[in-house]
Amino acid sequence: MKIETKIARFTTPLHLESGRILEPYEIKYETYGELNEDKSNVIVICHALSGSHHAAGRYENEAKPGWWDNFIGDGKTIDTRKYFVICTNNLGSCFGSTSPMSSMNKAGEAYRLKFPVLAITDIVKAQKRLFTSLGIDHVKAVIGGSMGGMQALCYSIEYPDFADTIIAMATTAYTRPWAIAVNKIAMESIRNDPAFKNGNYTKGDLIANGLPGLAIGRMAGLIAYVGPNSMNNKFGRNYVETDGLYELFGRFEVEKYLEYNAYNFPKIFDPLSYLYVCKTMNIFDAARGTDKLPDALSKIKCDLHLISFSDDVLFFPQEMEEIYNIMREMNMENVKYKMIESTHGHDSFLVELDKFKDYVVDILEKKI
Amino acid sequence: MKIETKIARFTTPLHLESGRILEPYEIKYETYGELNEDKSNVIVICHALSGSHHAAGRYENEAKPGWWDNFIGDGKTIDTRKYFVICTNNLGSCFGSTSPMSSMNKAGEAYRLKFPVLAITDIVKAQKRLFTSLGIDHVKAVIGGSMGGMQALCYSIEYPDFADTIIAMATTAYTRPWAIAVNKIAMESIRNDPAFKNGNYTKGDLIANGLPGLAIGRMAGLIAYVGPNSMNNKFGRNYVETDGLYELFGRFEVEKYLEYNAYNFPKIFDPLSYLYVCKTMNIFDAARGTDKLPDALSKIKCDLHLISFSDDVLFFPQEMEEIYNIMREMNMENVKYKMIESTHGHDSFLVELDKFKDYVVDILEKKI
Repeated sequence: MKIETKIARFTTPLHLESGRILEPYEIKYETYGELNEDKSNVIVICHALSGSHHAAGRYENEAKPGWWDNFIGDGKTIDTRKYFVICTNNLGSCFGSTSPMSSMNKAGEAYRLKFPVLAITDIVKAQKRLFTSLGIDHVKAVIGGSMGGMQALCYSIEYPDFADTIIAMATTAYTRPWAIAVNKIAMESIRNDPAFKNGNYTKGDLIANGLPGLAIGRMAGLIAYVGPNSMNNKFGRNYVETDGLYELFGRFEVEKYLEYNAYNFPKIFDPLSYLYVCKTMNIFDAARGTDKLPDALSKIKCDLHLISFSDDVLFFPQEMEEIYNIMREMNMENVKYKMIESTHGHDSFLVELDKFKDYVVDILEKKI
Repeated sequence: MKIETKIARFTTPLHLESGRILEPYEIKYETYGELNEDKSNVIVICHALSGSHHAAGRYENEAKPGWWDNFIGDGKTIDTRKYFVICTNNLGSCFGSTSPMSSMNKAGEAYRLKFPVLAITDIVKAQKRLFTSLGIDHVKAVIGGSMGGMQALCYSIEYPDFADTIIAMATTAYTRPWAIAVNKIAMESIRNDPAFKNGNYTKGDLIANGLPGLAIGRMAGLIAYVGPNSMNNKFGRNYVETDGLYELFGRFEVEKYLEYNAYNFPKIFDPLSYLYVCKTMNIFDAARGTDKLPDALSKIKCDLHLISFSDDVLFFPQEMEEIYNIMREMNMENVKYKMIESTHGHDSFLVELDKFKDYVVDILEKKI
């Protein structure tokens, strides 16, 4: 599979939903497969909170492949022998696109807490400009889960002619207080960490392991992404593995799992980015700019496919079903909704491919 | 209503499940109402994680009454005109009973991280000794929710002749990985807080607002106790109240709620106690000391009433239903199970009294 990783620089100001302007800015992106002659085989992949432009494939010295490598590749569900697949690193994220730690002036000072709060519309607008600069005005599909699903929904509303098909998974039309509360734990934990220094930390401050407050926040996210169903199945009644049952810090299996995943995370993710990405998710509302959600959804012209996962406790299935119901109440026929019986909670869209990959292939081949 | 608050000191060693010994130790307790002549009107109330002996009534200068004041009092569900009600402060908790910050030697040094990990059986054993010292060998009922429900279950198994009736609410027979994971966020957050100083903090270290790490941990607990259903109902689509939508630390209503509750908590709760109480909850297993749960449950002789709450996402209704099913499979007739349709999640046992108070009265009057 051909993989190309690039950075595009933009000097035309990006006018943000907040009224602020971002200029200049860069978008890092990765492509897989070959663009055909009439540019009609493009699929856009949108990543979620902790994701990046590196959705698939494996670099030479990489231990693990891209985050959706089981989904995207030669002969896989998103077949890179047929499609030209693009994934950008979201603005505000920390894997190469402009973010809070990018320079804001010629002196090289980083934005830090001066970085503007981004809305999903801003992130999508920046992506759209990139595609235009590549001569891509129309795509076969836009696909994303979680925060990526928010982007997919945004494409369907803001750029109704852009895609033939949009697949939004494990997401919502507007973020509920519950999801905001989960993010709140992370945001407060980061803010309160003395090493955060109100955003003025240096590489030296973060030490090798990153910001501890971010680890705690990630732990909160993890329990919401995995969820009780999956967690209780995965760990069953397996109690202490190390130390004694009566040692205060002796660990149950689930605690070991949480420690491992949470404490590794700050090594690869910037704390300021995490704050801004959480905020972007918190303020997401597909209806923004209109009076009410049905008005926004009425703009959708492409085929919108909504996929939810039954034991997702971050974005509940009812939240996607609501989008479907509103559109059907307006007699819109270009929407379909499917709930997958899942056992991995919110993470199911990443790990339970077998349950929905054929469905996605049918969608792309317009059989559904 | 007559309220008496006392401390009882014990010098006989308390042999703990872990093999360690606690000696001497104190139990703070509060009683409401009058003990009748033959001591046959006693109801024991067991408190949960953040609770105390002060279950009901209001002291002279108190802003808020005891934590179950809507449930216990003259003419209330647990009618203190009829019953003599006792609530002890659990060992390990920080409202007067022996805890990690109690002196462990004549030099007055506090146990801190040398405090022994307590099991629910230890906490109940200490309560039982107190009752014996008061000449109370048998009670009308033991009632508790959450961690208090764990104690109630423990009474039914370890002291089968002690109570006529046991009411266990919003609890479990053995703590699942999910609940352990929720506690993990708090435990790690406390541990990682530099001000915690590996348990060696002083009053001066904690400043007026207590340990910030405990606030974050409490926030994690809060979202599990309130749960998505309640949270999304309570806050609806109410967004920013203060600051702008595009201010990074501007808050949604739910965020303001979490901040208020979480940051006030460390003012009144000791971090070491919180660690130990979480640990006690984590290791709870009603089957301990037997080969399997049915063996433990088979010892129960009193009338056991299990009450769950439909939208509880800390201890799910199925966990209590399992207890009921196991006992019924053994043809035990002294158990009843009721799930209350609730909208306040795990907190429902504290706040949705109207939905189950009549049921409890019927239980106590042996009409069920």
